[in-house]
Amino acid sequence: MARLIEELRKLPGIGAKSAQRLAFHILRSSAADADALSDAVRELKAKLRLCSVCNNITDVDPCVYCSSPTRNQRQVCVVEEPTSIAVIERTRSYNGVYHVLHGTLSPLHGVGPEHLRTGSLTVRAERGEIDEAILATSPTLEGEATASLLADLLKPYPVRITRIATGVPAGSDIEYADEVTMTRALEGRREV
Amino acid sequence: MARLIEELRKLPGIGAKSAQRLAFHILRSSAADADALSDAVRELKAKLRLCSVCNNITDVDPCVYCSSPTRNQRQVCVVEEPTSIAVIERTRSYNGVYHVLHGTLSPLHGVGPEHLRTGSLTVRAERGEIDEAILATSPTLEGEATASLLADLLKPYPVRITRIATGVPAGSDIEYADEVTMTRALEGRREV
Repeated sequence: MARLIEELRKLPGIGAKSAQRLAFHILRSSAADADALSDAVRELKAKLRLCSVCNNITDVDPCVYCSSPTRNQRQVCVVEEPTSIAVIERTRSYNGVYHVLHGTLSPLHGVGPEHLRTGSLTVRAERGEIDEAILATSPTLEGEATASLLADLLKPYPVRITRIATGVPAGSDIEYADEVTMTRALEGRREV
Repeated sequence: MARLIEELRKLPGIGAKSAQRLAFHILRSSAADADALSDAVRELKAKLRLCSVCNNITDVDPCVYCSSPTRNQRQVCVVEEPTSIAVIERTRSYNGVYHVLHGTLSPLHGVGPEHLRTGSLTVRAERGEIDEAILATSPTLEGEATASLLADLLKPYPVRITRIATGVPAGSDIEYADEVTMTRALEGRREV
């Protein structure tokens, strides 16, 4: 019991109290449920790995995007985390592939360029395998710094480097736009 | 007393109870305060009018923007309401002038093109007084319909017609972007 509580406490957002509560719940649940949870945890690490091309979390290597014959393998959307891929897939308007950095630059938290998985992206660019790199990191301080770093890293190669638009979100009134967003919306205006 | 309560009830968001509460407050306040409120209401209508050039609410005609020698009088930002001007002024990044429509297209509420104040804008465009019209209506259904209408109205004239960017707001994580916003952020991507 103490060992399980200790292991559960290592999870993010789980303190001593929560760990105890979870452990007691597992204790009261059926042996089948406990086994299922145990197996699921073990299988996660055994079966899932990072795609050798794009770093996405996958059970097949290369991942479904990198091995898809119907996707444009020469258009690469660069994202911070694997969860960002779901956000972009939901739009149903993107048919290229991805590159997952697994983090953002954050000097305050000791995350430097060496901690981001940029290697396989620049290798692809160097080999002339990429036409366009869409920098889809968040328009936060860290995301913008990461986008700048990537732009610098990709500059030597013949790649079109683009950045997703910052602006007023769809369906929102401009009355609620903050100064920075409104400034970027004006700067980013396009001819109609 | 009944007359004041009746008049106060005509204000938006003021019901019978609130009107009574306000009226009693005025009754208890000093004669000077009551006079000041009375004068302020009267002066508002007596002194404020719409700018004959841009329809902004102003006490001088033309308004401070339309009569400013340091502003680019050939770049016009088209907004729905006078309050939008404050949003854009806060960015400190815009140095053109404005045109206020005083509304948005809304067929459901019976607001058609004939209800928007577009006349003086097309006249300015026809006279060749405008280089660029920035359509800064909100990226809502009504705002987009209004922007389309304006683009159609201005098309015959030699005016560069632009639309503010829709996208992920500054400082926000793309995880929280909805499908439409993310689609527009991808479509609106720009080379870096």
